[in-house]
Amino acid sequence: MTFKLTSPLDMHLHLREGEMLKTVAPLSARTFAGGVIMPNLVLPVDNENRLREYETAVRQACSPHQFEPYMTLFFKNYSAKFLEKIRDRIIGIKLYPAGITTHSEGGVDSLQQAQPTFAAMQELQIPLLVHGETDGFVLDRERDFLSNYAWLAKSFPRLKIIMEHITTAAAVDFLQLYENIYATVTVHHLLITLDDVAGGMLRPHLFCKPIAKRPQDREALLDAALQAHPKLMLGSDSAPHPVHRKESSCCAAGIFTAPIALQLLLVLFEKYGKLDYLQDFVSDNAQWIYDITAPKKEVRFEKKNFSVPEKYGDIVPMFAGEELAWHLVEP
Amino acid sequence: MTFKLTSPLDMHLHLREGEMLKTVAPLSARTFAGGVIMPNLVLPVDNENRLREYETAVRQACSPHQFEPYMTLFFKNYSAKFLEKIRDRIIGIKLYPAGITTHSEGGVDSLQQAQPTFAAMQELQIPLLVHGETDGFVLDRERDFLSNYAWLAKSFPRLKIIMEHITTAAAVDFLQLYENIYATVTVHHLLITLDDVAGGMLRPHLFCKPIAKRPQDREALLDAALQAHPKLMLGSDSAPHPVHRKESSCCAAGIFTAPIALQLLLVLFEKYGKLDYLQDFVSDNAQWIYDITAPKKEVRFEKKNFSVPEKYGDIVPMFAGEELAWHLVEP
Repeated sequence: MTFKLTSPLDMHLHLREGEMLKTVAPLSARTFAGGVIMPNLVLPVDNENRLREYETAVRQACSPHQFEPYMTLFFKNYSAKFLEKIRDRIIGIKLYPAGITTHSEGGVDSLQQAQPTFAAMQELQIPLLVHGETDGFVLDRERDFLSNYAWLAKSFPRLKIIMEHITTAAAVDFLQLYENIYATVTVHHLLITLDDVAGGMLRPHLFCKPIAKRPQDREALLDAALQAHPKLMLGSDSAPHPVHRKESSCCAAGIFTAPIALQLLLVLFEKYGKLDYLQDFVSDNAQWIYDITAPKKEVRFEKKNFSVPEKYGDIVPMFAGEELAWHLVEP
Repeated sequence: MTFKLTSPLDMHLHLREGEMLKTVAPLSARTFAGGVIMPNLVLPVDNENRLREYETAVRQACSPHQFEPYMTLFFKNYSAKFLEKIRDRIIGIKLYPAGITTHSEGGVDSLQQAQPTFAAMQELQIPLLVHGETDGFVLDRERDFLSNYAWLAKSFPRLKIIMEHITTAAAVDFLQLYENIYATVTVHHLLITLDDVAGGMLRPHLFCKPIAKRPQDREALLDAALQAHPKLMLGSDSAPHPVHRKESSCCAAGIFTAPIALQLLLVLFEKYGKLDYLQDFVSDNAQWIYDITAPKKEVRFEKKNFSVPEKYGDIVPMFAGEELAWHLVEP
């Protein structure tokens, strides 16, 4: 049994820089037709030079695979003039509330003060991608941030707003409230809850931000994904760290799923008899939401056991050493 | 400035076996006058030989410090005859629901089936010490277990029941409901919440069972401890693991606080102006609850900076490398 996906897209992807970029970029590029590349590098992608330089590095690292990197800028207060100049080079601008996740120390303190930038983005039709968490109690951060999404959606009704990596039933419900609100969801948040991270032994390779939530939250996310909710798209948030930063006294947040994301989704959508909806979830929804046309790329998978490697380079993937029932057919 | 404590007791302590026992036992014995020794060893303490053998090993490891090990048995269905024979050698019997924490695989599946043992314990005045968690969602386990405590308290109104290492405001409130319900609380649950464990980086050395909860829970525990709530006593649940079992892909549960537990409490009780209540919390309440007389031992602390060692043997303590404002005056 084989299964074909056309132009799968990863709408939330961390590729890092340097050697890490060279290790991980091909692992996304061999299966995905494109991806939204996050800008939260140590030196954030927040000006034209940095953007050009990073895009070049990403394209080089993905080569010779066919892969379109949809570049983003790190949100700060940009002038309308700059945004007009840069708009054709980016798919959106990613906003991090200050200090919320990896390399977000330079993020936004006040949404109010960013109004002119939001207004310019709305006029120029540049989507706003948001890491939507407050600095409150870890399990409440996403839910507590929803009021900010409401303010954004009402204040800028023609601004496309993407709630990135949603993790709660509340966020799924929120999708219905405003026409201009969309979301990405990761593979791992369809699979795990806080019980998997900290309910038995503590599992640093399942630790990410936003942290996995309650079983009811996972069910709501899974329901929405399995029916290919039209305002929801895959964004793996695959976030590699070298093993010494994950297995230590102080473990970095991020789950590395890029090389197995589609295989995991095949297992999941097949389990629930929803394989017919997978194409929409991993590609068509994203093309409609962002109004883009992905490069044409067909990827085939075979129903055949696949052992997830213990490591890719120095990175431990999710489900390291375990068997998956679907296997990528190399072209 | 110095502060004296008389006969501090650690009413919930893991001392392990072998080399680990030799490393950690003196670290408790030099400051505490006694402690309740948990029986969940790889081979549980659940018969007379094992109990005698373990008590001897503990006493040897504590020597030459003056330290009374209050021994416990691992709960299983024991005959009244056996319990009558053993009762003077133990302070209580520790019940673990099956599979809930370290080496609890042989724990209890059904409280109902254990009724004859509870009845015999009640008659013989042997306290029941309980790890009160269900196998539900990790943050709900203690609250969901409260109905079991209610059943126990009502069914065996003369059985002394200790809710071990409580972590929630709900458990603090529950203390008021039944005369025969008491509790221990750890030092770390007075200090940390889930935000400290997983709200920033992931901190395996702050990972324990039951896991730290919400800020409101910590506040309720702290309020009760600072007023030396008469049904509450210190039980550090100090639980050493070698560093390779804490910093790995699969980290063991347990926080090692024994050598610094009293120093941390001094800092905390001083901060809130409640030093007058510390003696009750760390000793007198326990003696009243268990109706025991602790060996007389005076321990002095000095207000002087103390650097917590990075390791004790192969064990990383809580607050490794950090400064505490109180220092043990060696006798």
